[in-house]
Amino acid sequence: MPRYKCTVEYDGTGFHGWQRQDEVCSVQTAIEVAIESFCGQSAEIFTAGRTDAGVHAKGQVFHFDLQAAHEPFKIISAVNHHLKPSPIALLQVEEVDGEFHARFSAIKRHYVYRIINRRAPLALEANRAWQVPVDLDEKLMQEAANFLLGTHDFTSFRDSECQSKSPVKTMDEIRIQRTGDEIRIYISAKSFLHHMVRNITGTLKMVGIKKWSPEYMCNILAAKNRSAAGPTAPACGLYLTKIDYSDT
Amino acid sequence: MPRYKCTVEYDGTGFHGWQRQDEVCSVQTAIEVAIESFCGQSAEIFTAGRTDAGVHAKGQVFHFDLQAAHEPFKIISAVNHHLKPSPIALLQVEEVDGEFHARFSAIKRHYVYRIINRRAPLALEANRAWQVPVDLDEKLMQEAANFLLGTHDFTSFRDSECQSKSPVKTMDEIRIQRTGDEIRIYISAKSFLHHMVRNITGTLKMVGIKKWSPEYMCNILAAKNRSAAGPTAPACGLYLTKIDYSDT
Repeated sequence: MPRYKCTVEYDGTGFHGWQRQDEVCSVQTAIEVAIESFCGQSAEIFTAGRTDAGVHAKGQVFHFDLQAAHEPFKIISAVNHHLKPSPIALLQVEEVDGEFHARFSAIKRHYVYRIINRRAPLALEANRAWQVPVDLDEKLMQEAANFLLGTHDFTSFRDSECQSKSPVKTMDEIRIQRTGDEIRIYISAKSFLHHMVRNITGTLKMVGIKKWSPEYMCNILAAKNRSAAGPTAPACGLYLTKIDYSDT
Repeated sequence: MPRYKCTVEYDGTGFHGWQRQDEVCSVQTAIEVAIESFCGQSAEIFTAGRTDAGVHAKGQVFHFDLQAAHEPFKIISAVNHHLKPSPIALLQVEEVDGEFHARFSAIKRHYVYRIINRRAPLALEANRAWQVPVDLDEKLMQEAANFLLGTHDFTSFRDSECQSKSPVKTMDEIRIQRTGDEIRIYISAKSFLHHMVRNITGTLKMVGIKKWSPEYMCNILAAKNRSAAGPTAPACGLYLTKIDYSDT
């Protein structure tokens, strides 16, 4: 059975997250229905990582197997046709060997979190970014973020429902960049705990508004207790941008 | 009577344009209703330039008069409160003297047109950009655009419903910039004809796909005939970004 690797973009606003669930809209169900409409075969899709309700993706990856081979460009156009009018679009499809697994073959995951730092509500970027009305100092946020680089026990940033075996993760990059009133947090690691990026963002915001010093990040890490860190930032600002595989 | 200058952002998708019309949603009506809800006074607002249905604004300007003076920060927060859940947000309000007129005092208008140049449909940027599936050569587009700089008779780019007295306009800037699969056309002039930016964009697209040479732009200008130029680009890619006034 041929296996296909797909890269997909979606607006997570109207979905109850990636994962298939009964009686609610999920990105997974929408794509599985579109694949079945295209080829008449029910196919289960396997993702690099489930996103929560309201979280967006510019470069999510999943794989699936088909009974018969199809040209990748035909899969893209047919599945995108059947996905309409859902805000989900396949960007790339390629045939891969049977060893490839969207989740287990992934070597790095990249996210960006968008904050718009202004008093006025968001008109054009509603559901696309987190509006923070209090002035944020992005240099202090970067100082605090630097303490998270490398390998740590990230229990303080872990959701209680997290199913990961270990709270120890290795943070490869946290880069904070301001352009006008927009602050972007670029964050990369092999894997993340549940809600980890949003919990880190909520904590960096506390540093940005000068409620906590950058150095306080060390205390938060050392506490190994979720209540030591800041609140969970809203889903709407988070984008899964890219998954790296060893062969790409 | 105190006069207020307001800068406003809106997502034009769900509106029948700026201008107040019977029985349809317009940006102007939504704002006028919000002002009346705030201060109990019906106030007519005057814009720097009406935008068409589906066109967005990041920095539209209008002015209005009130019978009693109010603190600008109170006007912003109260009007934004009453605008909810419309995708319209006041960004800035300042008291100006009675000589100021949003339309007649404007010395330059800035627009940006966003094209996403890819085959896949737009999920995150639906209604926010024009998806062009055929490869565009942005260098050829810039070469063509350069012929429009300066003062010309823009009849070939003028909608038949345009009410401007003269088709002669002076183009100050047309800058085309590609970042990945996104092409942005930055365009500035003291004033524009109706549909002028969208007609120029539709014509630059014909150059970008190599159907027309850059030099052909001269023939189009010389024709002084709307049918000589390209089709009107869709409204959803156009953003009114900024209005300049002599005192700002």
